[in-house]
Amino acid sequence: MKVSEIGEFGLIGRLEKMIADAKADRFSPDLLIGIGDDTAAWNCSGKIQLATVDSMVEGVHFTLDTVTWRELGWKALAINLSDIAAMGGRPLYILINLSLPDTTDADDIFHLYGGIIELAKQSKTAIVGGNVSGAPQVSVTITVIGESIDQHILKRSSSKPGDAIAVTGWPGSAVGGLAMLMQKLKFKEKDTAYFRNAFLHPVPRLNEGQVLVKNGIAAAIDTSDGLLSDLRHICEASHVGARINVENVPVHELLKKDFKDKAVEMALSGGEDYELLFTGTAGTVNKIKKMLDCPVSIIGEITENNSGKIKLLDAAGKPVTLKKTGWTHF
Amino acid sequence: MKVSEIGEFGLIGRLEKMIADAKADRFSPDLLIGIGDDTAAWNCSGKIQLATVDSMVEGVHFTLDTVTWRELGWKALAINLSDIAAMGGRPLYILINLSLPDTTDADDIFHLYGGIIELAKQSKTAIVGGNVSGAPQVSVTITVIGESIDQHILKRSSSKPGDAIAVTGWPGSAVGGLAMLMQKLKFKEKDTAYFRNAFLHPVPRLNEGQVLVKNGIAAAIDTSDGLLSDLRHICEASHVGARINVENVPVHELLKKDFKDKAVEMALSGGEDYELLFTGTAGTVNKIKKMLDCPVSIIGEITENNSGKIKLLDAAGKPVTLKKTGWTHF
Repeated sequence: MKVSEIGEFGLIGRLEKMIADAKADRFSPDLLIGIGDDTAAWNCSGKIQLATVDSMVEGVHFTLDTVTWRELGWKALAINLSDIAAMGGRPLYILINLSLPDTTDADDIFHLYGGIIELAKQSKTAIVGGNVSGAPQVSVTITVIGESIDQHILKRSSSKPGDAIAVTGWPGSAVGGLAMLMQKLKFKEKDTAYFRNAFLHPVPRLNEGQVLVKNGIAAAIDTSDGLLSDLRHICEASHVGARINVENVPVHELLKKDFKDKAVEMALSGGEDYELLFTGTAGTVNKIKKMLDCPVSIIGEITENNSGKIKLLDAAGKPVTLKKTGWTHF
Repeated sequence: MKVSEIGEFGLIGRLEKMIADAKADRFSPDLLIGIGDDTAAWNCSGKIQLATVDSMVEGVHFTLDTVTWRELGWKALAINLSDIAAMGGRPLYILINLSLPDTTDADDIFHLYGGIIELAKQSKTAIVGGNVSGAPQVSVTITVIGESIDQHILKRSSSKPGDAIAVTGWPGSAVGGLAMLMQKLKFKEKDTAYFRNAFLHPVPRLNEGQVLVKNGIAAAIDTSDGLLSDLRHICEASHVGARINVENVPVHELLKKDFKDKAVEMALSGGEDYELLFTGTAGTVNKIKKMLDCPVSIIGEITENNSGKIKLLDAAGKPVTLKKTGWTHF
């Protein structure tokens, strides 16, 4: 059976089962979070250490005619820092694995590293190692190692019934940028810049994640797969359900203006925003909302006993059914 | 200028300089070994943590008609564990980044993971995370995180003039396997199995590295680039020179038999053996030789003040000049 037939998540599920069956982690009493999460976590002499890896492959995650090398470097690091942010952690060290054709212009690679270095400095993270090898196309695989603030990390599995569900920023904007680039949509200059930035220059919510973990939030994830998909990851890991009030989902004015009736569904389903989706008591979430500089929207509530089930309600409390938007990634 | 013109090491040198100039590691007071080594090292609450990454790309490091999926998985992990071994460390956690065409047979991926899991279990290392994505060809990028035994690690930079130079195992055998596979050389069954195994099933010298670090050896590297290249890395990092007595370089009987007059040069220049090359006082090295089960050969001596310069001498003490063997990797 081809990988295309069992699907990415089918394959990952089978591989996770192989690893679990092999019980190869029985040697690791310090392991806190292993396979199946975006970030692994373990105890190291009283601190929690974090590690995550993610890659960007030419022709799959980007095309060189729609992204600059500097943007590529920035984003390749940002998507990994976002995984550390989703645990409320502090990034420490970066390893870069770069594969590229030997016909690549060396200056392009310097621009790529320029983008990585810019974000590394901004996030106070050291580039400590890596590897360069040949390949038929460009791919950048970055590993980030981090640590917890104090002894706490945010987890997907900590949501409780009654928790308010909140999200930072403007979900859907990144997929707006993807659609704009791939479909060569023409917008006003300001709109074009906004969408390009949302898709290619995500700013990992590191400070926000640390504010969450210091102020009583226990459950979070980053919206890399899309708001609803990532909320489903939380619900499944926490064995709870969720109710979303669709009119409270934040939709940026430019997304509404340029994508019209698709905008809400893009906000719900579009991925690659790298915002933080988190849950906590209404009091805690409202306190956090005042502490953060970025927009924070309360969009619904965690419900009991409906493992993974998410209900979407309109302003009148009636169920909303999502149409297939077609905003998938390639 | 194309990457092919400035070369792999030229590119890496320029990238290392960019990173150093950016001073992005000034936030990392705990960092012990950063960019430029195979493995990064830092202090974590009194223990030394280690991290390394390496990848195998189809068409560059392997072809699917010469390697089984299981061998590919084993080797992709082995080359990383070898970097931990070269510091005398203990591997703890593995992150796997897999890119592959969606036309790949899922069973092949299960065999690939079978190879990784087999070595993970043997080396008591837990697979804690990873990522799967599409790509035009298969590549496996593995990150291994480890820790030091006690507070010591082996370094490239710790060799001292007068140190004996020693190497484990039979260098050159792996490149013999590569030559056999790529040039479709026909050997006897036993020889074929030996060379295939040497190239595709390297056993990382983890126990040996730990014995070295516990018994007074301070300087080591793994022979991934080839004995002389890796000795040059040690000499440059330690600001010393070296003298090699070529007749003492171990050459496996099958390498001599099947590659005849090329065998010695293959042992000196061929890479991918993942043996340990280390230096220490003659007394310490002789003690280690008795403690290890694997072959240990003393092949020369570290000399003063000749940064990076390696002299090759024959049995009569006359200089030996290496011909270009042509045993490069692809």
